[in-house]
Amino acid sequence: MNRLRIAVVGLGPMGQVHVGNIVKLPNARLHAVASRRPDVAQEVAQRYHADHLYTDYDQLFSDPDLDAVVIATGCAEHPEHIIQAAQRGLHIFTEKPIGFTLADIDRALAAVREAGVHLQVGFMRRFDPGYAAAKQKIEEGAIGRPVMFKSVSRDPFWPEKQDGPGYNTTFLDLGVHDFDLARWLMGSEVAEVYAIGRALVYPKLAEFGDVDNAVVSLSFENGALGSIDFSRNARYGYDIRAEVLGDEGALMIGGLQQTPLLLLSREGITHDVFPWYPQRFADAFVAELVAFVDALQAGHAPEPGGLDGRRASEIGLAAVESWRSGRPVKVADAIRNT
Amino acid sequence: MNRLRIAVVGLGPMGQVHVGNIVKLPNARLHAVASRRPDVAQEVAQRYHADHLYTDYDQLFSDPDLDAVVIATGCAEHPEHIIQAAQRGLHIFTEKPIGFTLADIDRALAAVREAGVHLQVGFMRRFDPGYAAAKQKIEEGAIGRPVMFKSVSRDPFWPEKQDGPGYNTTFLDLGVHDFDLARWLMGSEVAEVYAIGRALVYPKLAEFGDVDNAVVSLSFENGALGSIDFSRNARYGYDIRAEVLGDEGALMIGGLQQTPLLLLSREGITHDVFPWYPQRFADAFVAELVAFVDALQAGHAPEPGGLDGRRASEIGLAAVESWRSGRPVKVADAIRNT
Amino acid sequence: MNRLRIAVVGLGPMGQVHVGNIVKLPNARLHAVASRRPDVAQEVAQRYHADHLYTDYDQLFSDPDLDAVVIATGCAEHPEHIIQAAQRGLHIFTEKPIGFTLADIDRALAAVREAGVHLQVGFMRRFDPGYAAAKQKIEEGAIGRPVMFKSVSRDPFWPEKQDGPGYNTTFLDLGVHDFDLARWLMGSEVAEVYAIGRALVYPKLAEFGDVDNAVVSLSFENGALGSIDFSRNARYGYDIRAEVLGDEGALMIGGLQQTPLLLLSREGITHDVFPWYPQRFADAFVAELVAFVDALQAGHAPEPGGLDGRRASEIGLAAVESWRSGRPVKVADAIRNT
Amino acid sequence: MNRLRIAVVGLGPMGQVHVGNIVKLPNARLHAVASRRPDVAQEVAQRYHADHLYTDYDQLFSDPDLDAVVIATGCAEHPEHIIQAAQRGLHIFTEKPIGFTLADIDRALAAVREAGVHLQVGFMRRFDPGYAAAKQKIEEGAIGRPVMFKSVSRDPFWPEKQDGPGYNTTFLDLGVHDFDLARWLMGSEVAEVYAIGRALVYPKLAEFGDVDNAVVSLSFENGALGSIDFSRNARYGYDIRAEVLGDEGALMIGGLQQTPLLLLSREGITHDVFPWYPQRFADAFVAELVAFVDALQAGHAPEPGGLDGRRASEIGLAAVESWRSGRPVKVADAIRNT
Repeated sequence: MNRLRIAVVGLGPMGQVHVGNIVKLPNARLHAVASRRPDVAQEVAQRYHADHLYTDYDQLFSDPDLDAVVIATGCAEHPEHIIQAAQRGLHIFTEKPIGFTLADIDRALAAVREAGVHLQVGFMRRFDPGYAAAKQKIEEGAIGRPVMFKSVSRDPFWPEKQDGPGYNTTFLDLGVHDFDLARWLMGSEVAEVYAIGRALVYPKLAEFGDVDNAVVSLSFENGALGSIDFSRNARYGYDIRAEVLGDEGALMIGGLQQTPLLLLSREGITHDVFPWYPQRFADAFVAELVAFVDALQAGHAPEPGGLDGRRASEIGLAAVESWRSGRPVKVADAIRNT
Repeated sequence: MNRLRIAVVGLGPMGQVHVGNIVKLPNARLHAVASRRPDVAQEVAQRYHADHLYTDYDQLFSDPDLDAVVIATGCAEHPEHIIQAAQRGLHIFTEKPIGFTLADIDRALAAVREAGVHLQVGFMRRFDPGYAAAKQKIEEGAIGRPVMFKSVSRDPFWPEKQDGPGYNTTFLDLGVHDFDLARWLMGSEVAEVYAIGRALVYPKLAEFGDVDNAVVSLSFENGALGSIDFSRNARYGYDIRAEVLGDEGALMIGGLQQTPLLLLSREGITHDVFPWYPQRFADAFVAELVAFVDALQAGHAPEPGGLDGRRASEIGLAAVESWRSGRPVKVADAIRNT
Repeated sequence: MNRLRIAVVGLGPMGQVHVGNIVKLPNARLHAVASRRPDVAQEVAQRYHADHLYTDYDQLFSDPDLDAVVIATGCAEHPEHIIQAAQRGLHIFTEKPIGFTLADIDRALAAVREAGVHLQVGFMRRFDPGYAAAKQKIEEGAIGRPVMFKSVSRDPFWPEKQDGPGYNTTFLDLGVHDFDLARWLMGSEVAEVYAIGRALVYPKLAEFGDVDNAVVSLSFENGALGSIDFSRNARYGYDIRAEVLGDEGALMIGGLQQTPLLLLSREGITHDVFPWYPQRFADAFVAELVAFVDALQAGHAPEPGGLDGRRASEIGLAAVESWRSGRPVKVADAIRNT
Repeated sequence: MNRLRIAVVGLGPMGQVHVGNIVKLPNARLHAVASRRPDVAQEVAQRYHADHLYTDYDQLFSDPDLDAVVIATGCAEHPEHIIQAAQRGLHIFTEKPIGFTLADIDRALAAVREAGVHLQVGFMRRFDPGYAAAKQKIEEGAIGRPVMFKSVSRDPFWPEKQDGPGYNTTFLDLGVHDFDLARWLMGSEVAEVYAIGRALVYPKLAEFGDVDNAVVSLSFENGALGSIDFSRNARYGYDIRAEVLGDEGALMIGGLQQTPLLLLSREGITHDVFPWYPQRFADAFVAELVAFVDALQAGHAPEPGGLDGRRASEIGLAAVESWRSGRPVKVADAIRNT
C-alpha cells in the first residue's frame, strides 16, 4: 500500500500541529506544506522534511502528485479552499468550522459532493480517549437513556490575533466543538437553543460584536436537555469537560491535570492544568488524522463528515440569533432565516 | 448563659436531623418535639431525651418555656407555622422554602417583622465547609471578579411521598438552594432567567405539572452569567456541586466521595458517592443551627434571613414562569405578576 | 436505660476532644472532668456543663456515681491510672499506648482482669469510615487474599511539648496506630520487623534518642509483607494513609483533602489538607466512644481491647530494638527480651 | 543535519515499542530491524518501512551504514550485544538492566569505554513528565531537603514468558527502575538495603528462586530513608508511583487513571487504570529516544549512562543478597562480594 501523500495548507499553530502529526503516520507522507509566509513555509518544510513547499495555495492544489489536503487556513477562508481542493479532486481534512455562514458551507459541501471527494471535519474531541470512551459507554447502555448534556469550553485567554470583528467566534468557532458533541453523544439533533453572553473581560470583543463568556441552553428533539458554558478567561488553563446524565447513571469526561505530579506544601496540594489545546488534545489530533488516512486508504468516507460540520454550525448560528434577539430560537428557524 | 430552649415542629427526615443536632449543642436544649403522629413524637422524644412532646402544633407554640422553634413541617404549611410561632414571640428557624407563593411568604415575613422575632432560613449549603470557603475565597479576591456561576443539584431519586401536584418543587423546593447560592456567591441579584425542563423519567411528575430534569440560565444584574441543572435521577448518588469562574481564576465546590476508600479491581478504581443529603450536609446541618443559636444568644439577627428566603423564591417563581411560557423572564416581572 | 456516667481524666488536646464528643452521645452523660490544672478543669467543666470537676485524679476515681472513665493523661501515666480506675470498678477507655513497657502494660491489664471491668484502647483509626470500610471489603473478599500492607503516618510537625526523652514515641506512641492496623487489616500477627530511622529535622529528637523519620518493614506470620513510613515533618498537613494489596485487587485508604473546594488559578489547581488529627479523625473519635458506650450499655466487652493494645506495643518495642541494633527482630524475641 | 540511522535489535514487545517511536522522530531514520524470528522481522520491517531487516544480529552490527542501535534483546544477552555493538563503533541505547552480574556489566562498560561510543540505559521513568517534573521541583527547592523516598512498582501479572529461573528479576529487572529513581531523585547514593520478599501468588517463582511481592528498605549515604514495594499481582493495572518527602513539603508522582472518563453508576464512581507499561510510559519511551538522538546529533554523552545503569544494578544485587541472607546489606559489601 502506498503512503497517502498529504499537504497541509496554512501553517499557523493548528497547521503546524497537523504537520507534526502527519510525519508520525506510517501510511502517510508529508508531500507538501503551504503558507503565504515564505519564511514559515521554509522553516516548517525543513524541520519536518516535507518533499515540497508552496507559498501559493493555488499551485499547491494543482500539484499532480497530491492525494489529500489538510486545510488549516483562516476560518473565513475554509469554504474557498475546500472548493479549490475539491475541484482538483483532492480528499479534504478541514479544520472547523467549514464556514461562518450556511451559504458558504453549502457551497463548499456542494463542491465536495460534485467532485466525489471525501471530507472530514476536524472535530478532534470525538477522538480524545475520554470522549470516545464516553460515546462507547453510552452505546453500551452504561448510563441508560441520556437525558442531559453538559459541556464546558473555556480558553485560558482570548487568542486575539486569530479573530476579527463580526464572526461571533465564541459560538461559531469555539462553540461548534460542543454543538458537535451534543449531537454525537446524545444521539439526537438539537431542536432549540437559548443563548446569553457578554464581553465581560475583553472590551474589544464587545466592539467586535462578540462575547467572552456565554451560556447556551439546549433542547434536543428527543426531549433531552442541555447546557454549555463558554469562556475566554479561564486563567488557570484550558478547561474542556462534558457530562452526560442518563436515567441509569452518568459520565464525566475530561481531566484538567496535565502532569502526573502533586506538590504538597504549606499552601495545600497542587497540580498543574493543561495550558492549551495542543497539550490537551495531543493524542486526539493524531487519532483524527489516523482515522482520515485509514478511511481513505480503505476507500471509505471518513467521519465526522460535511453534514456533521454543517449541523454543528446550524446550532451555532441559532445560538448567535438567540443571543442577538434575547429569545429562544428553533434551529430549524435559524436555518430558514439565514 | 442559659441554654436556648428549642422545639422541633415536624418530625419527618429533615426534622429528625435537626433534633439529632440540637442535642449536640452545648448552649441549646431540646425542649420539645412535635409531630401529628403520636408514635413518631413518642419515639423521637424518648431517643433524644426531649423534655416534652406535642402532637398538636398549636399547643407547642403556646408552651411558655420555649425560646425558639425549628419548623420542619410540610413546605406548604411553613407560612402558617411561621405566623403562629411569630405571634407567640418565638424565634424561628424554618426549613426552605418559606412558602410556595410570594403572597404566603410576605404574610409570614410580615408576622415575623411585627412580632420582632428573628428568622433564619435553612439554606444549609452556605454552612458547608466547601461553599463557605468558596465565599471567603471570593471575598478575598482569589478569583478576581466573578463572571460565571454554575450549579448542579441532582437527587438520586424523586422523593415521591413528600411531593404533591402543583408545587413545581424542582424549581421552588430543590431549586431555592441554588438560587440562594447564586445571589450569595456572586454578590449580585439575578435579573433574568430562562428555564427548560421535562418529566423524562417520572411520568407522575408530568401529571403533577412538574419536571424531573431542568436547566436554568441566569443573567445577573451586574452582567454575570449563570447556569444551573437539576435532576431527580442521579442514580449514582446525591450530586451537589457549584463553580464560580472569575476573571482571575475559578472555584469548584463539592466532593462526591463519601468514604475515603478506593477499591482497585479488574473493573477499575472505584469509590462511593454521598447517597443523600443527610450524609453530604451532615456538618452543614449542625453548623447552621450553631449559627442560629449563637446569634440568638448574642442577640443578633441570624443569617440567611427572611429576605434571603424571599429572594431565592422570587428567582424560583420566575423560573416556573419561564418554563411555562417558553420565554426568558425578568425576575422583577415575575414578582409583579404573582 | 440510664445514661452512662463518664468522666474524662486529663484535659490536654485529646482529652478535650473526648469531652466534646461525650456530650453529643444520647446515651452517655459527662459526669466529671479532671485536670491537675484548676483553670483548665474549670473552663472545660463550664463550657461542656460537666456535673463535677476534679483536680485530684484519686478523688475522681473514688466518685461513687461514676460508671466509666476516659483516660487521656500523659502516656507514661496511663498504666497507673488504668490500675486506679480498675481497682474502683470503673470501665475504662484509655488513650494509646497502654504503656511504654510490657511490664507496665501487663500490670495494667492484670488490674483490669482482676477487677472484671472492661477496657477499650483508643485506636480510633479502626472507626474511621475509610479504614472501617476497608476492613469490611477485605472480609467480603473484595481483594482476595491480602499479601501486602502499606501504611503512612506523618505528622505536620513534632509536638514537642508532649514528648520527653527516652520514650521512642515515633515507634511507641505514633506507631502503635499503624501496628494495630497491620494486625487488624491483614488478619495475621506480625512476626518480624526491621526498622530504620533518623532525627533528620529535629536535632532535639536525636538528643532524646528518638527519630523524626522512620521506615519499618513487616513480615507477617502468614507470609504477607508490609512497610510503614513515619515522619514528623509533613509540612503540608496530617498525612495518614494505608494500602492493602491482595491477590485479586487492592484498597487505598485515606483522603488528604479536608474541604470540598478546589481553587483554580495561574498556579494550578489547589486544595487544602487536613491540618491535624482532630480534623482528620473527627468522626472516628465520636464513633469509638459510641462503640464504647454502646458495648457497656449492652454488657459486652468493647473492642479493640487490652490484648490489641499489648500486641501493637509489642511490635513497636520490636521496632525500637531493631532500630537500635540495626538488625531485623522477631516480635517473639522482643517480648522475651523486655 | 543527516538523520541518525538507527537499528532495533530484538523485536519483543519492548523492541517494537522502540521501532514505533523511532519512525516518529524527524532527526532519526529506522535503518534496520533485527529479530531471530524471520516472520517477526519481516512483519515489523514492512509495517514501519524499515530500510533493512536482519535475522542475524552479527550481520546487523556489521552494517556499515548504521549509526546507532537500540538493544532490546533478552536481558541476559544485553552485555554480549553491547560489546558487539561497541566493537563495531555503534552508539548504543540499551534496555535495562545492562546485565545481571557486575562482572557482565563491567565487561560491557569496558567495551563501550574502549570503543569511545556513547551508551544510554533505558530508564524511561526519568523521562516521564511526572518524574521529570518532580526532579525539577526538587532541584528548585520546592520541598526543601529530601528526607524520604517511597516507590511502588506493581505489575498487573507476572510476564512468565520473559523470565527464567535464577535471575531474581523482581529485584534485578523490575527493581532497577526504582533503584535508579532513588539515586536520581534523592541526589544521594544508597548505602544499605534490607529486602523481604516471597512468592505468594505464583508458585513457579518460588521454584525459580524468585519472589512476586517484596519490600526493600533503603538507607541513603546522606542519612535519608526509603522504602520500595514490588508486586507482580496488581490485578487492577500497572501501578507505578513514587513520593519524595522533604523537610518543607512533598511530591507525589504518578497517576493511575488512563482515560479521562468517570462512570457514575449505582456501584459508585469508577475510572480505568493504565493496563501496562506501553500505555503508562508511552510519552516517556518517545522522550528517552529523543534525548538519545539529540545527544548523539549534538555530540554529547546521553543520560542516564553506563554508570547509572551499574549503580542501579549494584543496589539490586545488594537487595538480592539481603533477601537471601535475611540481613541488612551494605551496597559496598555487595559489590565486593560479587
